Amino acid sequence: MTPSSINRRKFIKTTSAAGLGLSLMSYPSILFGKDDRKVKIALIGLGLRGRDHLSLLLRRNDVEVVAISDIDREALKLSQKMISESGKSAVKEFTGSDTAYLDMLHEKDIDGVVISTPWLWHTRMAVDCMKAGKYAGVEVSAANTLEECWDLVNTHEETGVPVMILENVCYRRDVMAILQMVREGLFGELTHLECGYEHDLREVKFNNGTQPYGGGVEFGDKGFSEASWRTEHSIHRNGDIYPTHGIGPVAEYLNINRGNRFDYLTSTATKAKGLHKYIVDQAGEDHPNAKVNFKLGDIITTVIKTVNGESITVQHDTNSPRPYSLGFRVQGTNGLWMNLNDSIYIEHKSKPHRWESDKAYMEKYDHPLWKKYGKEAESAGHGGMDFFVIHAFVESIKNQAPTPLDAYDAAAWSAITPLSEQSIAGGSEPIFFPDFTRGRWMKRKPVFALDDSY
Amino acid sequence: MTPSSINRRKFIKTTSAAGLGLSLMSYPSILFGKDDRKVKIALIGLGLRGRDHLSLLLRRNDVEVVAISDIDREALKLSQKMISESGKSAVKEFTGSDTAYLDMLHEKDIDGVVISTPWLWHTRMAVDCMKAGKYAGVEVSAANTLEECWDLVNTHEETGVPVMILENVCYRRDVMAILQMVREGLFGELTHLECGYEHDLREVKFNNGTQPYGGGVEFGDKGFSEASWRTEHSIHRNGDIYPTHGIGPVAEYLNINRGNRFDYLTSTATKAKGLHKYIVDQAGEDHPNAKVNFKLGDIITTVIKTVNGESITVQHDTNSPRPYSLGFRVQGTNGLWMNLNDSIYIEHKSKPHRWESDKAYMEKYDHPLWKKYGKEAESAGHGGMDFFVIHAFVESIKNQAPTPLDAYDAAAWSAITPLSEQSIAGGSEPIFFPDFTRGRWMKRKPVFALDDSY
Repeated sequence: MTPSSINRRKFIKTTSAAGLGLSLMSYPSILFGKDDRKVKIALIGLGLRGRDHLSLLLRRNDVEVVAISDIDREALKLSQKMISESGKSAVKEFTGSDTAYLDMLHEKDIDGVVISTPWLWHTRMAVDCMKAGKYAGVEVSAANTLEECWDLVNTHEETGVPVMILENVCYRRDVMAILQMVREGLFGELTHLECGYEHDLREVKFNNGTQPYGGGVEFGDKGFSEASWRTEHSIHRNGDIYPTHGIGPVAEYLNINRGNRFDYLTSTATKAKGLHKYIVDQAGEDHPNAKVNFKLGDIITTVIKTVNGESITVQHDTNSPRPYSLGFRVQGTNGLWMNLNDSIYIEHKSKPHRWESDKAYMEKYDHPLWKKYGKEAESAGHGGMDFFVIHAFVESIKNQAPTPLDAYDAAAWSAITPLSEQSIAGGSEPIFFPDFTRGRWMKRKPVFALDDSY
Repeated sequence: MTPSSINRRKFIKTTSAAGLGLSLMSYPSILFGKDDRKVKIALIGLGLRGRDHLSLLLRRNDVEVVAISDIDREALKLSQKMISESGKSAVKEFTGSDTAYLDMLHEKDIDGVVISTPWLWHTRMAVDCMKAGKYAGVEVSAANTLEECWDLVNTHEETGVPVMILENVCYRRDVMAILQMVREGLFGELTHLECGYEHDLREVKFNNGTQPYGGGVEFGDKGFSEASWRTEHSIHRNGDIYPTHGIGPVAEYLNINRGNRFDYLTSTATKAKGLHKYIVDQAGEDHPNAKVNFKLGDIITTVIKTVNGESITVQHDTNSPRPYSLGFRVQGTNGLWMNLNDSIYIEHKSKPHRWESDKAYMEKYDHPLWKKYGKEAESAGHGGMDFFVIHAFVESIKNQAPTPLDAYDAAAWSAITPLSEQSIAGGSEPIFFPDFTRGRWMKRKPVFALDDSY
């Protein structure tokens, strides 16, 4: 990556202003006027998640998928098949080494890159994209360590190139309807929020080496798909290693980095029992993996305090048998919404002291984006939210504008992982968040999903 | 209170062994053989809560209410009316000063005393009862400060007289059924529990000075019933000031003080908005109470870690509009129960990844106490749980045995209040629990609700 390889088109210089605190609102929405050319997207990582994104990109008339990179040739083959089946010609492949993607980033005719690789590659690839002048769309979490959080922010500010954390749950239909309710003041002044990633991942962390989910207790070299890389985080780390599906929506409700900020957190881990038990239950005490010492507590509970005085509980619960939930709670001085029982209570609207189904509220406050694109989104599969996150990424590029979720969001949300590890290691001691905006959170304005554009 | 006034009957010397770590199980169930004499109960505090207890006591054939004490003569009058209506003769009254109850404790013919006074009187009255050789049954919370927690424990150990924290929720039907499920291992090894006191108390904290609930924004000298004393805790304290309805049941699930122990906690408070808003909404900015600065955060979130590696989330949420909930969650390596959606998930029993109604489980695991006394309990009002807590107190006296909830429970549960205040004041710093058992938690065995006796 030489300086000369950095794309120095006008938009890059202009968007660097975004790094200095200007909001989307103060930003010309389209710098170059209407532009009919297609947005040229490349992808790094074509596993199950990468191919989800590929599928969405191939459906769009305003996108041209121009290149793909993965070390897994089978994944590339399956991707080319999808491309061909969508009526398009094969695209250039970059493979053969862990750094083959860098050669792809040298290509001039790429506007943005979607990164869906194992966690430890996210930040370095996003940083390389920005340095190459390409919009970076990076899967969650965006960073593994505090240093990586800063890498995202500093590279964004140095290059002026946007990086978007592809947090799809921010676009979930109910989550966006609640955002409308929050913005209209239905809950009053917010006080306490809850969220989490409560998902039994035992069949993701372990499989038989040939199928992605379950059927065995293998992981690492003997595992397939996510089990080949994700499980090691449960062995070596004790913290909330996957915070963004919960905290992303909550951060939008609370205008984090835009008038508000995470101040500090405490984290508490339970004992680690679930993964060992699963191995023993499935394969017996004598299976070599029954000797593995998993460090990740079964349930991690993190409590964040914001500088504006709200508290947020974030849970990580992936090693136990349980139904899926993101456990949202949104509470303010006028009432609250609970995700678990799909119920809401609003003073003077709901019957006193009685829960009310949230159904009518969800319909009434349906977000303009969902009203406009809901049909298209749902037909694209995955409940629709993936459509919107890719839509936002593509539209941001098309408009040569900042992305609605940005480097500061990526850093602040992903920072929960290393900070929670530090808190747990220190007996739940409070740990302060770095201010990734370097004070500019005081002036930055909300930009996420303000209308029906993206 | 002179040493000579202490009742030195044999049972007192024997029960002092309980203070030395002997459990109910190792204890002769009836020291004096069958005894047909009635248990003689006195009451201190005859407000709304005290009269609830009086009503239950008057229904019992094995109890004689022998004396009542309150500074409020109207409360005594209403109580005597209840006594008379139950077909009994008027009882001795002790009134006229804050310490009139001490004269009552000098009476020889009292076996136990039920204390239902404002919080700041709980510990000193319970201590005085124990010193007078009378079983103390004290309403929740049992103590306001750490020193008071130690007062309960030390006085119990010095006198050998039992003190029971009258935590009725330990006896709620669903709570006891869950206890049976926990004991039978349905949830596997427990890992994470949640509970709380989520109760919109704004109409308890404020009233018009003549009715107990609402109708105005007065408190303190101008308030009536609980508003006259409870509200001041919301002005001066920032912590979980009412933890026991949630933590009591959870402590039984986790065998706290009996093989397990609270290790440390962190607490986080939101901003304090609800009470001020309520005053302004009801009475306008110009009402003098609109100037009151409430210190109590609207939502207090406490996370406790136990020495056996479980975590417990405890919430205090009394200043905001919301439906009532104690927010129980009981989770282990085999599954979990959630109170909010009345649902359960047990691996290999429930359909994979799907919540199941807890109804059939509640029926199947109905506690023997409820099977035996359920009808009687429910006809006594208050959902039945008050019946059982009074039943246990009376039966403990009848059997001259330790109470199933004891001084160590009262201390450990009530300690959450001062410890959470300290944590919040220190920016959510972790605070260790004192070991009120002085190490004997390692040997003490569970005693709560082991069968259908009490």
